[in-house]
Amino acid sequence: MAFSPLVDELVESLRCLPGVGQKTAQRMAFHLLERGRTGGTRLADALGQAMTGVRRCTSCQNFADTEICGICDNPVRRTGSLCVVESPSDLLAIEQAGDYRGGYFVLMGHLSPIDGVGPEEIGIERLLQRVEDENISELILATNPTVEGEATAHYIADRLDGRDILITRLAHGIPVGGELGYVDGFTLTHAFRGRKPLSD
Amino acid sequence: MAFSPLVDELVESLRCLPGVGQKTAQRMAFHLLERGRTGGTRLADALGQAMTGVRRCTSCQNFADTEICGICDNPVRRTGSLCVVESPSDLLAIEQAGDYRGGYFVLMGHLSPIDGVGPEEIGIERLLQRVEDENISELILATNPTVEGEATAHYIADRLDGRDILITRLAHGIPVGGELGYVDGFTLTHAFRGRKPLSD
Repeated sequence: MAFSPLVDELVESLRCLPGVGQKTAQRMAFHLLERGRTGGTRLADALGQAMTGVRRCTSCQNFADTEICGICDNPVRRTGSLCVVESPSDLLAIEQAGDYRGGYFVLMGHLSPIDGVGPEEIGIERLLQRVEDENISELILATNPTVEGEATAHYIADRLDGRDILITRLAHGIPVGGELGYVDGFTLTHAFRGRKPLSD
Repeated sequence: MAFSPLVDELVESLRCLPGVGQKTAQRMAFHLLERGRTGGTRLADALGQAMTGVRRCTSCQNFADTEICGICDNPVRRTGSLCVVESPSDLLAIEQAGDYRGGYFVLMGHLSPIDGVGPEEIGIERLLQRVEDENISELILATNPTVEGEATAHYIADRLDGRDILITRLAHGIPVGGELGYVDGFTLTHAFRGRKPLSD
């Protein structure tokens, strides 16, 4: 684009966003310039501050503005339960469901030897240390039900083998509001095997 | 999201981008924080500079860093032809095609009385003044082939009625590389009516 170096640079920079190619970046840039200058300026400030100010909580590894995040710092959340998730968005989904009130540990990934991600990269030692120090009674392994997620869960369970701690995994089954006809075979098998008496 | 005001503000600000909702904004924010801090900082700078620095060229109304944009300022582009487009992305598409070497006028919209967009809002007077001042010999009305685009083109043509100036409209027809079976009836009718001898 020949007419404006500032617009060129804006379009080029917008491409660092995931899923944004040349055409989308152009559309975003023109939208902001035409109708969203206030929003654009606010985004520039928020981005600048977040990129320098956001760090990782030293306790749960999640993104935080402070050394210890709000959840880890909250004495009410020290229930003796620790929920291990792969990413901040998983944590967010659980928080939005609103039922779980214990602590978290965010791996920021999963074991993937082929990509060079081993136990150190996802902070397994720090997790085990925390289980020890905080006298955790239940460790909920809420990694994703994928091959890597399952492998990561089993690795953590193996490392805690022999200790007096309850290790659990989230239940598989039919999604609430789902229709049986659209549920895949694996999920249905899990749902059958995990069936419960009606009185529960 | 309870854990970080900076991350909350970043997610909220990202929603000013077109087509970006809550989930996409979250994904973008986490992506930038995890793997794209350099890109994020660059984007923050580019946004800040563009939001304050980019204005409209006083000659063609396109986005520009300077009072007169690069194309209007280039004496080689003063060919006596002026191409009227609706938006900067239309201009960009024509520039990327690379064949047209004349000047432009960017309406930044089209006539749409229902939305309160009249001739003043899209700068028709400025366009007519330019046609007069620069002794334009051909005015190419490259507005979109939509109802509003056609209406805008006809309005401009009407305003120039009686003057010694060639007013043209882009040709309709089959897209290059297109297959006849997939071309709609209106386009095909246009293509038939506009057929040319093979020697052309």
